[in-house]
Amino acid sequence: MTDPQPFVERLRAAAQKNRSWLCVGLDVVLDRLPAGLPHTSDGACQFVSAVIEATSDLVCAYKPNFAFYEAMGVDGWRMLCEMRQMIPQEIVLIADAKRGDIGSTSEAYAQAIFDRMGFDALTVNPYLGRDAIQPFLDRRDRGVIVVTRTSNPGARDFQDLLVGAEPLYLAVTRQVMAWNEHGNCGLVAGATYPAELASIRQIAPTLPILIPGVGAQAGDLAAAVKAGRDNNRAMAIVNASRSVIYAGDGPDYAQEVRRAASRLRDEINAALASD
Amino acid sequence: MTDPQPFVERLRAAAQKNRSWLCVGLDVVLDRLPAGLPHTSDGACQFVSAVIEATSDLVCAYKPNFAFYEAMGVDGWRMLCEMRQMIPQEIVLIADAKRGDIGSTSEAYAQAIFDRMGFDALTVNPYLGRDAIQPFLDRRDRGVIVVTRTSNPGARDFQDLLVGAEPLYLAVTRQVMAWNEHGNCGLVAGATYPAELASIRQIAPTLPILIPGVGAQAGDLAAAVKAGRDNNRAMAIVNASRSVIYAGDGPDYAQEVRRAASRLRDEINAALASD
Repeated sequence: MTDPQPFVERLRAAAQKNRSWLCVGLDVVLDRLPAGLPHTSDGACQFVSAVIEATSDLVCAYKPNFAFYEAMGVDGWRMLCEMRQMIPQEIVLIADAKRGDIGSTSEAYAQAIFDRMGFDALTVNPYLGRDAIQPFLDRRDRGVIVVTRTSNPGARDFQDLLVGAEPLYLAVTRQVMAWNEHGNCGLVAGATYPAELASIRQIAPTLPILIPGVGAQAGDLAAAVKAGRDNNRAMAIVNASRSVIYAGDGPDYAQEVRRAASRLRDEINAALASD
Repeated sequence: MTDPQPFVERLRAAAQKNRSWLCVGLDVVLDRLPAGLPHTSDGACQFVSAVIEATSDLVCAYKPNFAFYEAMGVDGWRMLCEMRQMIPQEIVLIADAKRGDIGSTSEAYAQAIFDRMGFDALTVNPYLGRDAIQPFLDRRDRGVIVVTRTSNPGARDFQDLLVGAEPLYLAVTRQVMAWNEHGNCGLVAGATYPAELASIRQIAPTLPILIPGVGAQAGDLAAAVKAGRDNNRAMAIVNASRSVIYAGDGPDYAQEVRRAASRLRDEINAALASD
């Protein structure tokens, strides 16, 4: 067996193959399943399979948010455990779980999400500091995507507080640069605040930035893509969830999903091409 | 059906009945199961049942940390789903999950942990701000225990940064007081830093404080209990995990677990009685 490819290289390879920075967020809610699918975990599983089949040549990554699967109980957790087998090998699978706890506990989360479930990367919350992130950082072949500036209104409550001359989220960004010893760190920064995103990119010129909020949350796609780019030295993972997976609600929903994903990928590429 | 009792009242009632502020952390690791138990999820389930049976008249709460169950895969998640049925009705069950995400996602976590799994309270991470916590706060009968100052070394990285004249963890504490409109908030503050704990208690004189770190992490029990108390207007939930549940590793482990829990409860009560 050869060493697994580091996360960032796998991500770049997938983005290059499909000419896409698009990540589809697999955030399944039973009440929103298209007509014809049962509102059960079986229906959810069929739906996720169809979404993956309709989009896997259009994306660089998939990102299920764990909350929606936990809300389905044991069956939902089983789906998460089987997801790595549901998507093509070359596409990156990101656990949007925002974990983070004291060291021995984060080690258990790393075992769960990386070793047992086979995810390529996960999102983590920085509030508990470095030793809470270390067990994830130590898995050199996996990605550790640290939440810095989120896309929700409450992001202002703490992330924007000034610590010294700069807001907390920039202090977090600087720490992540220091934690990036194995080159496996990334950042989460919401598209709803392009100026903040640009200042994060300035401090972290090389890290991949996961950018949620371009779809249902109505962030500025062009600004997000440009801030994500930084002269081709880095890349962004542009996530859309609801605006893609719920693009259609009839029997032809998979075609609508494909159309929405394709349009978004083209918009991202157009923004990248224009200067 | 009568309305469920609010979390804080249920917690007080359990503490009064068992004369105990002790919370046992059900943090099961397969490799550490006592001799004679299989190192499987079945063994883990037997172990947790035995620990509960040995201690349920000595505690006010149990607190499984989700990481250890997630590390056991689907079977571990099933154990979490069944845990509310495994413990006596009057004892409070706290999900140590440190969740927190944008609003629609936290709503899904609330559905999972409160509605589907039946936990009485959960721990949350404040970094994403109020709207990330709101779906939990809205469940008036459930407890929302916000992480402020943790017991690990990395707590210093961000929690101690000065925002204005005070450290971030005190700014978080002030916000939690503002979020406590339904009287269902609590705080997490580590016993390993008694001075910080005391300053948190000063800002939040009435909130229950969950204090981890008195066992294997070697925090100062007496200082923790006193800081938790604040003139009997409030209470602490004093958590010990490994030092109790792994107190014995032979066939009589349940007796050793009971002895360790009983000793810790007595130490807490002695600290409470002394001034």
